[in-house]
Amino acid sequence: MRYYSTTGGFREERDTFGPIQVPNDKLWGAQTQRSLQNFEIGGDRERMPEPIIRSFGILKKCAAKVNIEYGLDPSIGKAIMEAAQEVADGKLNDHFPLVIWQTGSGTQSNMNANEVIANRAAEILGHKRGGKLVHPNDHVNRSQSSNDTFPTVMHIAAATEINSRLIPKLKQLHTTLQAKTSEFSDIVKIGRTHTQDATPLTLGQEFSGYTTQVKYGIDRVLCTLPRMYQLAQGGTAVGTGLNTKKGFDAKIAAAVADETRLPFVTAENKFEALAAHDAFVETSGALNTIAVSLMKIANDIRFLGSGPRCGFGELILPENEPGSSIMPGKVNPTQCEALTMVCAQTIGNHVGLTVGGSNGHFELNVFKPMIASSLLHSIRLIADASASFEKNCVRGIQANRDRINKLLYESLMLVTSLNPKIGYDNAAAVAKTAHKQGCTLKEAALQLGVLTSEEFDQLVVPEKMIGPSD
Amino acid sequence: MRYYSTTGGFREERDTFGPIQVPNDKLWGAQTQRSLQNFEIGGDRERMPEPIIRSFGILKKCAAKVNIEYGLDPSIGKAIMEAAQEVADGKLNDHFPLVIWQTGSGTQSNMNANEVIANRAAEILGHKRGGKLVHPNDHVNRSQSSNDTFPTVMHIAAATEINSRLIPKLKQLHTTLQAKTSEFSDIVKIGRTHTQDATPLTLGQEFSGYTTQVKYGIDRVLCTLPRMYQLAQGGTAVGTGLNTKKGFDAKIAAAVADETRLPFVTAENKFEALAAHDAFVETSGALNTIAVSLMKIANDIRFLGSGPRCGFGELILPENEPGSSIMPGKVNPTQCEALTMVCAQTIGNHVGLTVGGSNGHFELNVFKPMIASSLLHSIRLIADASASFEKNCVRGIQANRDRINKLLYESLMLVTSLNPKIGYDNAAAVAKTAHKQGCTLKEAALQLGVLTSEEFDQLVVPEKMIGPSD
Amino acid sequence: MRYYSTTGGFREERDTFGPIQVPNDKLWGAQTQRSLQNFEIGGDRERMPEPIIRSFGILKKCAAKVNIEYGLDPSIGKAIMEAAQEVADGKLNDHFPLVIWQTGSGTQSNMNANEVIANRAAEILGHKRGGKLVHPNDHVNRSQSSNDTFPTVMHIAAATEINSRLIPKLKQLHTTLQAKTSEFSDIVKIGRTHTQDATPLTLGQEFSGYTTQVKYGIDRVLCTLPRMYQLAQGGTAVGTGLNTKKGFDAKIAAAVADETRLPFVTAENKFEALAAHDAFVETSGALNTIAVSLMKIANDIRFLGSGPRCGFGELILPENEPGSSIMPGKVNPTQCEALTMVCAQTIGNHVGLTVGGSNGHFELNVFKPMIASSLLHSIRLIADASASFEKNCVRGIQANRDRINKLLYESLMLVTSLNPKIGYDNAAAVAKTAHKQGCTLKEAALQLGVLTSEEFDQLVVPEKMIGPSD
Amino acid sequence: MRYYSTTGGFREERDTFGPIQVPNDKLWGAQTQRSLQNFEIGGDRERMPEPIIRSFGILKKCAAKVNIEYGLDPSIGKAIMEAAQEVADGKLNDHFPLVIWQTGSGTQSNMNANEVIANRAAEILGHKRGGKLVHPNDHVNRSQSSNDTFPTVMHIAAATEINSRLIPKLKQLHTTLQAKTSEFSDIVKIGRTHTQDATPLTLGQEFSGYTTQVKYGIDRVLCTLPRMYQLAQGGTAVGTGLNTKKGFDAKIAAAVADETRLPFVTAENKFEALAAHDAFVETSGALNTIAVSLMKIANDIRFLGSGPRCGFGELILPENEPGSSIMPGKVNPTQCEALTMVCAQTIGNHVGLTVGGSNGHFELNVFKPMIASSLLHSIRLIADASASFEKNCVRGIQANRDRINKLLYESLMLVTSLNPKIGYDNAAAVAKTAHKQGCTLKEAALQLGVLTSEEFDQLVVPEKMIGPSD
Repeated sequence: MRYYSTTGGFREERDTFGPIQVPNDKLWGAQTQRSLQNFEIGGDRERMPEPIIRSFGILKKCAAKVNIEYGLDPSIGKAIMEAAQEVADGKLNDHFPLVIWQTGSGTQSNMNANEVIANRAAEILGHKRGGKLVHPNDHVNRSQSSNDTFPTVMHIAAATEINSRLIPKLKQLHTTLQAKTSEFSDIVKIGRTHTQDATPLTLGQEFSGYTTQVKYGIDRVLCTLPRMYQLAQGGTAVGTGLNTKKGFDAKIAAAVADETRLPFVTAENKFEALAAHDAFVETSGALNTIAVSLMKIANDIRFLGSGPRCGFGELILPENEPGSSIMPGKVNPTQCEALTMVCAQTIGNHVGLTVGGSNGHFELNVFKPMIASSLLHSIRLIADASASFEKNCVRGIQANRDRINKLLYESLMLVTSLNPKIGYDNAAAVAKTAHKQGCTLKEAALQLGVLTSEEFDQLVVPEKMIGPSD
Repeated sequence: MRYYSTTGGFREERDTFGPIQVPNDKLWGAQTQRSLQNFEIGGDRERMPEPIIRSFGILKKCAAKVNIEYGLDPSIGKAIMEAAQEVADGKLNDHFPLVIWQTGSGTQSNMNANEVIANRAAEILGHKRGGKLVHPNDHVNRSQSSNDTFPTVMHIAAATEINSRLIPKLKQLHTTLQAKTSEFSDIVKIGRTHTQDATPLTLGQEFSGYTTQVKYGIDRVLCTLPRMYQLAQGGTAVGTGLNTKKGFDAKIAAAVADETRLPFVTAENKFEALAAHDAFVETSGALNTIAVSLMKIANDIRFLGSGPRCGFGELILPENEPGSSIMPGKVNPTQCEALTMVCAQTIGNHVGLTVGGSNGHFELNVFKPMIASSLLHSIRLIADASASFEKNCVRGIQANRDRINKLLYESLMLVTSLNPKIGYDNAAAVAKTAHKQGCTLKEAALQLGVLTSEEFDQLVVPEKMIGPSD
Repeated sequence: MRYYSTTGGFREERDTFGPIQVPNDKLWGAQTQRSLQNFEIGGDRERMPEPIIRSFGILKKCAAKVNIEYGLDPSIGKAIMEAAQEVADGKLNDHFPLVIWQTGSGTQSNMNANEVIANRAAEILGHKRGGKLVHPNDHVNRSQSSNDTFPTVMHIAAATEINSRLIPKLKQLHTTLQAKTSEFSDIVKIGRTHTQDATPLTLGQEFSGYTTQVKYGIDRVLCTLPRMYQLAQGGTAVGTGLNTKKGFDAKIAAAVADETRLPFVTAENKFEALAAHDAFVETSGALNTIAVSLMKIANDIRFLGSGPRCGFGELILPENEPGSSIMPGKVNPTQCEALTMVCAQTIGNHVGLTVGGSNGHFELNVFKPMIASSLLHSIRLIADASASFEKNCVRGIQANRDRINKLLYESLMLVTSLNPKIGYDNAAAVAKTAHKQGCTLKEAALQLGVLTSEEFDQLVVPEKMIGPSD
Repeated sequence: MRYYSTTGGFREERDTFGPIQVPNDKLWGAQTQRSLQNFEIGGDRERMPEPIIRSFGILKKCAAKVNIEYGLDPSIGKAIMEAAQEVADGKLNDHFPLVIWQTGSGTQSNMNANEVIANRAAEILGHKRGGKLVHPNDHVNRSQSSNDTFPTVMHIAAATEINSRLIPKLKQLHTTLQAKTSEFSDIVKIGRTHTQDATPLTLGQEFSGYTTQVKYGIDRVLCTLPRMYQLAQGGTAVGTGLNTKKGFDAKIAAAVADETRLPFVTAENKFEALAAHDAFVETSGALNTIAVSLMKIANDIRFLGSGPRCGFGELILPENEPGSSIMPGKVNPTQCEALTMVCAQTIGNHVGLTVGGSNGHFELNVFKPMIASSLLHSIRLIADASASFEKNCVRGIQANRDRINKLLYESLMLVTSLNPKIGYDNAAAVAKTAHKQGCTLKEAALQLGVLTSEEFDQLVVPEKMIGPSD
């Protein structure tokens, strides 16, 4: 019974199911305690993600503010706002012990927030916790239902994390990739298609592809935000808004927008907003695409940096730590590895979230906590791993110019530039001869008598092969 | 050796690997024939999707047109355009025998198109097939590489299918759902959250949620199109545009836009366009979200139509066929079933495509045919199944007003409207008493003495519970 | 820089990269510290799963034991064994701060274990930490490489968690479902196919299906264990066993088997054991199947328990907490919800793990920590959620016999039993008449004149419809 | 209305919904025709997979045989058996036009089989089609329901395809890989971990890993067969066996076993067998694991074969076709590409199937056709692609001994063998010096003065580094 450890004894809290013992040093109430006992699933690491807790703080503060307009006793309302601000600031995280794997509506976490804020607000007003001077339902949850607060909090948390964490980290990665694109713009190297030698391009051109992928990744997430900014609040139990006043929904959305400085609006259809979480599936799809992009980029970089002697060896990656407990001097592309593992997890989270999103019934989707935590997990991992990758890998990548040059001039695919002069068939013969005899293209061309040495040197100029002709 | 069946004997065709026998009655050449023999995977049903073949027709026609501007012999160019138009019209489908599971660049299908068009163009010019008067590489594939044509064709095919097939079908479904929303706007029914009885809403409100889901689904696909309209053509082998002339890329995109009346443009970065198919992963993500939406809608409708006697029974679904070979009179929600199966397949295709998209290396992603066919498969299935569902199910849905009314008035959750008058605790007692004794809420309320009969009738009015109060 | 908080100052530790400051109150060394600084991804909740840490304790203890046989100084060896036992007992968890998202070989966690055990062993021998009296590489990691220890630990952790956590919980769920099967064996109820009314069966028969699903689920996991019991240890860096003595691999496996009382053996092919984690993909597939089974069971139970007035209402689920903050008296199937969310996550984890498993290259798969944590996550969630579901839901399920009986006799599908007597067509007419007029089958049959009242009563006996006839 | 094309006019067929026009040259009846009109989804390529159709032939033949024992008129029974054999032989494929995306129980395909066999049997007996002398329901479907026939057919089809197609192809691939393991057993090469140079192993050892993966893949599929051999037949509509005689189920299973020479048995629990398709999810999981294995193998082979000049270049893959329409002499690893695309599709199919499997409700899972086709698709693709890969790639792989040798002796990781003599730190210094100066290890060692030339030559012997020491 790991949740009962407390040094300060217990107090009695009550809900409609009756009394229950709660640790004295905790602010939560009866329903939180009941959930603790009924859902021993996964342990501490599975607690509701912190952005959800903080967003409850934001929402409850805004709700109190709007409820004062609609007649809530201002002294109680103010105390709720103050307590809620503490939740929003992360100061009361220890009082949110519930795991993701609870009721599918997130009701218990909503009640956790209501109970903690009610007890803390009572304390602020000089009363003791448990007394219900400030009531979790009647005051803190006023005009609300778990069914609209939880999806609202989901959207606040996701939009905030995207704006404050994901986008800045992706932009930083984009900036650094773009800088590398410029830095490497004059380095002509062999291209590879089908993993086989192909015609040349510059290393900068290669990096421009990565840069574009990240740029579009940012666009993709931004495209989904209009639907993420729609808040369910005001829908109450089934989407109708029963027990609210007209205009409550829009006022709440405005208050949240004001508090977060993000353009939240009230959802145009509250039934959709409670019964489905398509907006999360959609945004997770954008993360899935970004994961695919980053997987490609990280794979390229680790292969281009493979070696030092027996791989492609075109890039030199920063050495951040000893690579092997058995092989001296080994350096591994560990940042690429951390990033690609994160990508795989994000792809997996997307599927789990998709399954959860597809299983809503009637007026309520009851995979809410899982859907929320999956997306927040992916956002956090992609953001952090992108930042780590940018800082500890991309920024320090150097081109191995000698190696790049050596490979370029050994490549048989430079033969492509002979096509216009000697035709595809002769060019193929040159390439095949060089391949078979292990000689250079030039040697093969001279041997076959299809070109003079001067002609060859004039035609085979990799620098002229990196773009369309005039 | 199933691909050798032919009645008209064989002719010899050649490529750089040498001569090979090809059936006389087929227009394809040596490379197509080689692929047939090397990739016996999956059988006929796995042939490259028709929209890809038709898009090759469009592209090769446009390429010939632009190539004439750049110096291609106009008589040959015109013949190519004519032959390509036949491919675009689907008239030469039988000459495209290759399966999806071939080279990952789609080179063999590009060569299939080149060979068929070259032979057909030769015929148009009065020559016989196999003679290479019109050359597959030098003429039909001029200034092109498989590495830019195949992704170009992928984008043309997907954008065309989305615009001509998917969006219209989704819009029709949206229109019909919206009509049902209006038709059912006055029918108050019990709501259900957690699959349990909840406060009421109108059947129209319930359908408005579905309508919104489909509307957003359309928005989601449209959001992805800017990246889908970008064409790789002009990048040739590795993205540099080697062997093309400056401006070729933009001219081709303009020609394709003109031909398809869709706003295609040349890709801003050709390296990204060859090496990654993030645009397909992204669009597949939109399809995945639509699948999630439709799964929810179809599940709701089949459950609301469950019965006729022992289920929810609120909806009457059209009877389209006998339901059971053993149970007389049984009618099943078969359209919902076909649609949800399609949704599951779409979710699966999305994962396969994601895996393919994440595995590109260096200058070329070599999961192209699989990525293309997965998305086209999902588009076709979602479009067709939406149309079938709309026509054979949604359009004919009737509300079972008697049943809806009966359930509504039996529901204990109407007790919610007593909260303001008698408080949550008393209301809960009324509900629990009614539940335990199997009586009506009114009977319970009177028995507990918390309300008079008149008060009850005044307060418990479902029609007043379907929105916020003034 | 959250990992630097410490109250006791710092000491210097060294590795081949040079000196680095480490908090005095922590046992870890230089390489762990470096990883902390280089991989700030995901935060505390993303730390390497505890079963991995504990399994490192088991392995390092066994390695020291075998190494003593091969010449390791027994006093050092014994101290390592003692320190490793503390790791195995979870006493040193706070000294394992590294996250999953690190090097893909898990090298840094292997070094974390080596460093902590070395420092702790030195303390046991009366020396101070940091002094390398006991050397992390030369002593603790002797004859080992991260490349064989990490997969070994993965297998130990998974096999242990399966045997000690997953199987017992699934067996308990199976037992309880079987008890319900017996308890409900005489309750005849309406069957439902296509979610529509169908011919009857007993509630016990319905539960027997669930029981069988769980039974097979256990079988499925057990089927995968032969490959999970194979240990990579002895393969060292690339699978060859370089720097070990012949027989070392088998001795280690025997020692681990002895320590865990599980039938571990040395892997028959060490190259496969390092380069691939197919065994994890396979076992995750078994978990995926179990998730599918449990999703079905939990969905059935929540739908059969839907109501109380407006759903199927055949089952009465235990009430564990208040259901709604707005609707008095509402009780929700929250255990089903927690379980189905866990199932969705498990399905998602399976995909992530599959992606990771498919991306190994050459001699080493470098998605190891992610693959390990995904499977352990699924095992833990499925085990815990099954236990919670069993205890807080299944055990307390009651049949609502009145409701079941009422629905059974209202059902039109009892008409099926008239087929042999009056034929399919007449039976269908009876059903359709009853449906249209809202009357009973009997009334319809009499009205149509196809049977007498006595005949009807003799033929329509649901109790006779629940099995094949003699 | 593409399904109406017929040259021979129409006849009228009837079902309980009334009369309907059917093309004269087709054997199907009213219910098939209705499905054609109601489910225009996906087009011809989406027709029910042929193994399902053939398995219907097998099952209906066996059912007739057993039904004769239970009283079916032997002349009718014999005609059914003969007609069913034609279906089993694939002779009547053109009479099975229905697509996968129909009713989720597969009822319409069951009726398609019943109708075709009834009409064909009538013809065999000298009557004309459409006359119902042999009745689709009363005779062909006797003692059966779609709800037990379709899952039975699913199991027959999957088990047959696995045994006759998948296992033999995988075994052939295994045999060839094993031969390569022997062929390459003396070729010492550089190992690669983290895609970086590592200690050596033999090319045979590397291939032994692949061989083991394929061997275990076969084991994994075989492990799932005990549950695949369980047949639902005899469960009829909901699993109870209503309208069958006792023993019917076991007799049918025995007859099918006899007919197919596979150890089919009657399912121990028919409720599970209709309501869930966990056996398919499980087997698909085995295919998913095999896809992961083959993805790894094919990726390794294409990277090891990358080049010819600028990649790893250790393997020489067979040249099967020209590789590039623009680059003369280019050869691509196209078989690896086809195989990895198939693997990605299989991984995707597994997810779709998982979603379908998880969505069964009550007595019947209604994702049957989709589940069936997904698994059969994966089986066919993996089998065919494995065969193609074996024949057109693996069999012809040659080792590039010169290149392998060159890389081996250039590698810095041979330094590992100096550890015992000069210590890890000195060894690291040698490696780093060689790396920095671009010289050999030996040169670096001599320069640093840590070893004599003779000592170096004695210690650095790659052939001694490929196994544990005595």
